[in-house]
Amino acid sequence: MDGIRIIKIGGNVVENPPLLEQFIRDFSGLEGKKVLVHGGGVMASRIQKLLGQQPVMIDGRRVTDSDTLKTVTMVYAGWCSKSIVALLQKSGCNAIGLSGADADLIRAVRRAPVTKTDRPGGEPVTIDYGYVGDVDPHRINAGFLHGLLDAGITPVICAITHDGNGSLLNTNADTIASSVAVSLASYRTDRAGDGQSMQAGHAPEVSLIYCFEKDGVLYDKDDDSSVIPEINPEYYCRLKKEGRVAAGMIPKLDNAFKALENGVKQVVIRNASNIGDNTGTILSL
Amino acid sequence: MDGIRIIKIGGNVVENPPLLEQFIRDFSGLEGKKVLVHGGGVMASRIQKLLGQQPVMIDGRRVTDSDTLKTVTMVYAGWCSKSIVALLQKSGCNAIGLSGADADLIRAVRRAPVTKTDRPGGEPVTIDYGYVGDVDPHRINAGFLHGLLDAGITPVICAITHDGNGSLLNTNADTIASSVAVSLASYRTDRAGDGQSMQAGHAPEVSLIYCFEKDGVLYDKDDDSSVIPEINPEYYCRLKKEGRVAAGMIPKLDNAFKALENGVKQVVIRNASNIGDNTGTILSL
Repeated sequence: MDGIRIIKIGGNVVENPPLLEQFIRDFSGLEGKKVLVHGGGVMASRIQKLLGQQPVMIDGRRVTDSDTLKTVTMVYAGWCSKSIVALLQKSGCNAIGLSGADADLIRAVRRAPVTKTDRPGGEPVTIDYGYVGDVDPHRINAGFLHGLLDAGITPVICAITHDGNGSLLNTNADTIASSVAVSLASYRTDRAGDGQSMQAGHAPEVSLIYCFEKDGVLYDKDDDSSVIPEINPEYYCRLKKEGRVAAGMIPKLDNAFKALENGVKQVVIRNASNIGDNTGTILSL
Repeated sequence: MDGIRIIKIGGNVVENPPLLEQFIRDFSGLEGKKVLVHGGGVMASRIQKLLGQQPVMIDGRRVTDSDTLKTVTMVYAGWCSKSIVALLQKSGCNAIGLSGADADLIRAVRRAPVTKTDRPGGEPVTIDYGYVGDVDPHRINAGFLHGLLDAGITPVICAITHDGNGSLLNTNADTIASSVAVSLASYRTDRAGDGQSMQAGHAPEVSLIYCFEKDGVLYDKDDDSSVIPEINPEYYCRLKKEGRVAAGMIPKLDNAFKALENGVKQVVIRNASNIGDNTGTILSL
């Protein structure tokens, strides 16, 4: 079986014990190669407050000073990662929890401060996100991931990367999921015919599944049953123009279409309770 | 080069930025295969207090209720592990941070409550250490570690294990270091001649180096220059009888001699500033 599924879950699953337990059972039961990417933002905010730090979010991204970096690393790479791995081990899934620093898995570039103007004529404001990193798509160690998958080990990747210069970086988990999917999809293709173990024309089919609390992308955000079964780029443009796509969903969908353009076979947006079935919104080119 | 060095550092190194930086440089510079095992207890106690938890230590072991388990997992497997790995990556050492749950690396058995009497005639007291685990020496995934080492990847192991039943367990880092050393030393020997890649009679020489803040085991605890160059089991008995061995050093030395009896070639107790040289106390049979 050559397919690889990259499944991304957010804090709503990670931090809800009954949901997480069900998810772990379903995920462990999926046959074939798979990678889990997880967030943990709600717990990070809670621990930040307990530690006397004030969580600051701008456009859905956490402003990450050095204390915040310690907290998100403790929460994502520490408790969330290892408790998920322990539960997967219990379910018979031989998982390994990784940050982007481990085995030089994912390098990122620290985001430069950005100057923005909120409204026409408004004062420009400079935003420094601090230790926030944007994935360098050319520095993903896909060979290491393929090696783990070939050995029957399931990578569990958290939203922490590194810059190669000693700093950890807080990185968006959706972007990690799509970047890892693209990298895994292109790795074998790139190496096909180079005399190594890969066979030409035998690239794995990589699919990317974003799990969240809704059943898919909704046509009417107030109607949970209005799931759009399929979206292509033209339809996506129309939906955006009509203001039908929730602001928080736009980066997710942008990432998804970018992944499809770069070799990922299928992207699905689905409820975390249904990872094994065929529900949700399928994105296609 | 077939030698493998297991190097254990404590919180005094991990939590002292200048000491840690020097250690990272020295460790990265060591040629050959190596494994780092680290603690982080001082930071764990500090974070516990900030989170409103009261650290309780009995006989040098942390009583670990469920909140404490979250904290030590966040600190050891999160911040300590990943910040060490990021610094090693910067130094050109391709490291990977692991807990015992990752790739089912180290299983442990939750310690049963123990009933003790402090003094003759005193009231017996039951101590429940909570989520504290004792390493199961038969459940160390030495094959996975050898695979990483063969691939040029340096494992960095923290003091968190799992029970195989979904629970993480807080586990003594000295014991993890000696158990991993024994397991690595015996793995190749066990498999020699089984037709796999190992060659008969070609077992790796595994050495175990415990780093701490003194230059070695001291004959006079008030004289830092009184390092004992070599200790064998008979001499160790005499030192204990004479009350010359500090209480905190006894489990370390007991572990060390057990490792030697089980195939580890050499155990050294040395200052963390001198990992590359020949100083310290050498333990031998």
